[in-house]
Amino acid sequence: MYDVTEIRKDFPILGREVNGKPLVYLDNGASAQKPQVVIDAISNTYANEYANVHRGLHYLSNLATDNYESVRGVIARFLNAKSEDEIILNSGTTEGINMVAYGWAMPRLQAGDEIVLSVMEHHANIVPWHFLRERQGVVLKWVDVDSTGALDPQAVIDAIGSKTKLIAISHLSNVLGTKVDVKTITAEAHARGVPVLVDGSQAAVHQPVDLQDLDCDFYAITGHKLYGPSGSGAIFVKSERMKEMRPFIGGGDMIKEVSKEAVIYNDPPLMFEAGTPGIVQTIGFGVALEYMMNLGMDNIAAYEDTLRDYTVERLAGLNWLQVQGTTPDKAAIFSFTLEGAAHAHDVSTILDKKGVAVRAGQHCVGPLMQHMGLSATCRASFGLYNTKQEVDVFVDALELAHDLFA
Amino acid sequence: MYDVTEIRKDFPILGREVNGKPLVYLDNGASAQKPQVVIDAISNTYANEYANVHRGLHYLSNLATDNYESVRGVIARFLNAKSEDEIILNSGTTEGINMVAYGWAMPRLQAGDEIVLSVMEHHANIVPWHFLRERQGVVLKWVDVDSTGALDPQAVIDAIGSKTKLIAISHLSNVLGTKVDVKTITAEAHARGVPVLVDGSQAAVHQPVDLQDLDCDFYAITGHKLYGPSGSGAIFVKSERMKEMRPFIGGGDMIKEVSKEAVIYNDPPLMFEAGTPGIVQTIGFGVALEYMMNLGMDNIAAYEDTLRDYTVERLAGLNWLQVQGTTPDKAAIFSFTLEGAAHAHDVSTILDKKGVAVRAGQHCVGPLMQHMGLSATCRASFGLYNTKQEVDVFVDALELAHDLFA
Repeated sequence: MYDVTEIRKDFPILGREVNGKPLVYLDNGASAQKPQVVIDAISNTYANEYANVHRGLHYLSNLATDNYESVRGVIARFLNAKSEDEIILNSGTTEGINMVAYGWAMPRLQAGDEIVLSVMEHHANIVPWHFLRERQGVVLKWVDVDSTGALDPQAVIDAIGSKTKLIAISHLSNVLGTKVDVKTITAEAHARGVPVLVDGSQAAVHQPVDLQDLDCDFYAITGHKLYGPSGSGAIFVKSERMKEMRPFIGGGDMIKEVSKEAVIYNDPPLMFEAGTPGIVQTIGFGVALEYMMNLGMDNIAAYEDTLRDYTVERLAGLNWLQVQGTTPDKAAIFSFTLEGAAHAHDVSTILDKKGVAVRAGQHCVGPLMQHMGLSATCRASFGLYNTKQEVDVFVDALELAHDLFA
Repeated sequence: MYDVTEIRKDFPILGREVNGKPLVYLDNGASAQKPQVVIDAISNTYANEYANVHRGLHYLSNLATDNYESVRGVIARFLNAKSEDEIILNSGTTEGINMVAYGWAMPRLQAGDEIVLSVMEHHANIVPWHFLRERQGVVLKWVDVDSTGALDPQAVIDAIGSKTKLIAISHLSNVLGTKVDVKTITAEAHARGVPVLVDGSQAAVHQPVDLQDLDCDFYAITGHKLYGPSGSGAIFVKSERMKEMRPFIGGGDMIKEVSKEAVIYNDPPLMFEAGTPGIVQTIGFGVALEYMMNLGMDNIAAYEDTLRDYTVERLAGLNWLQVQGTTPDKAAIFSFTLEGAAHAHDVSTILDKKGVAVRAGQHCVGPLMQHMGLSATCRASFGLYNTKQEVDVFVDALELAHDLFA
């Protein structure tokens, strides 16, 4: 039984008001709120169990190391990775994808080599590849989505040429809610010898992820969207690919030996984790993933589907509202514009007055915005604690905005 | 009045026991403990004021943005930087120095160009430069310390040649406690057209730092050593140098515009802060710096000097103990070995049984260990909350270890 009333009690911020109204938090695509167990894990670590990890032998250091290192296994379980040695702990998707760009692609790709991207990628999965274009002449090949926001896997496969060295693709669009058939793309890409990097920032929040089934080479996730602390995250890297990567960030902990003349690097995955890590936020991240797994990713996905269906139904009545992304199996993420003069920023301000937090702007998807011919949208993105009643408040506020600007 | 008894009450973990003994935490060089105000700031942000920053317009996002962005000014004040625009927020010193290596040095240095380092650098200020040696033939020039652990500024200046492009140097050794005359080095280096990067990880914890006086080009600090959260930090970059840097991590927030064809980057410092940042740990970092500034950095330094002097006096009686680093104005950091068979790890284990947390090993200073001819030391590193009574407990435990292994 998925009891959202009980679940909401786990998230202290959901009890607060904003502008005199109960908070309706629909900005989960940007960052999710945190359950009390995560907040408590952070406080408790600092108040009772904190020290630096790995390099100490005293009681607190061993305790912190055990608590920190155990998260690697939690993440592997959450993603159904084959081994926790394929999990590199980091500060989030941006760092993870940059690590692949600098550590795997930069020394490997030549001028003229191609990376295939979809037009709906987030800037975190675009800018690191633009670096390679600017700095070493790598070519970015873009695959469009159709008018519903769907990405045809065959279109991605057809974009693969003899110069293609990597496919870098989102598993779930942060703006359209579109789910991407990563498994088909990966199978066909691998048949052509091309590795696949998946931006799982949004997908891992809304659906079960089975990396042994998907079989992709890289899969990046970010803790703060997964109900965990800011500054936490991880990237899965298949062990064959990890062997091909050179270290990205240099410093303590990622080495076996440093002399004046040379460095002997640590074994992977530690080779890719330099310096004092985000100890406490990683511990909190583990607690957040355990919280999600306790609810059950299938249950969360099924519940959010009911929110999506109800929202689709409620929005269908608003003929002055244009929703971007209408694939039937999409996640509960709604980007929209209002007919007439109302700018997305003005709409979001009206919603905010009613306690409804949505995001307005480009949502870090420049190429998609250009593809859609829009300069900005509002985005309402749902999480595991949202309710149908909140959908109603949201729709009422939209109607008010429409009345004001009509 | 510096009342350490009152100050200790601010740090909840200091009240706990380890192995049945009151915790004597002397591992501050690895990471410092956190005052309750920092823990509360983290909890309160997550429980009441959390959202993603910069890209939202709703109430919580604006609030989080204000709280987050205000830390830039706190850090500028803490370091006496000219402008908060010279402060780049990040996850700590390791990220900061890597950013300079990748963003400033990599596109600028040619094979045969030299970087001058001291032999007592931490791996965070070595490995990024080894990357440049391995990948593009940059030459690392090492300056030794003398038998007391002092670094002669003239020796650093003398190492500058026509090929020298950067001096990368610690302000305070994490193993010897040696303080380095960065001001003299910087003045002479600048006279020769050579920029100076300073690893301030340890110095900023133990003494006032005045960047307008030091005049160095880069100054890296790390939040978790400064009584702040793990995964927080910053690097000061002089605005002339910032203009010379290319972006390091690519993603959201560091751009003005992204299209399929190109990127227009944001203005510095935002150009160097990609993706969702460590929002809550940065907010906590600001609170930690305010806490230190309320105590007064001069007061902290003066108090820690009394701890240093008392420790020197107590250790002087132990003729079977060899302390590394004996400069008179050193920080209260004591690396030592015991005569005879006792390995540093065994010593630290005995101390741990008495509740005394010290670190044992290489302390991320491979070249210094080789210079000293040692494979490992124990290190007792003091913080603003340690006491003379704790020095006594530490020395008693050392005597016990000596008795056991003698």
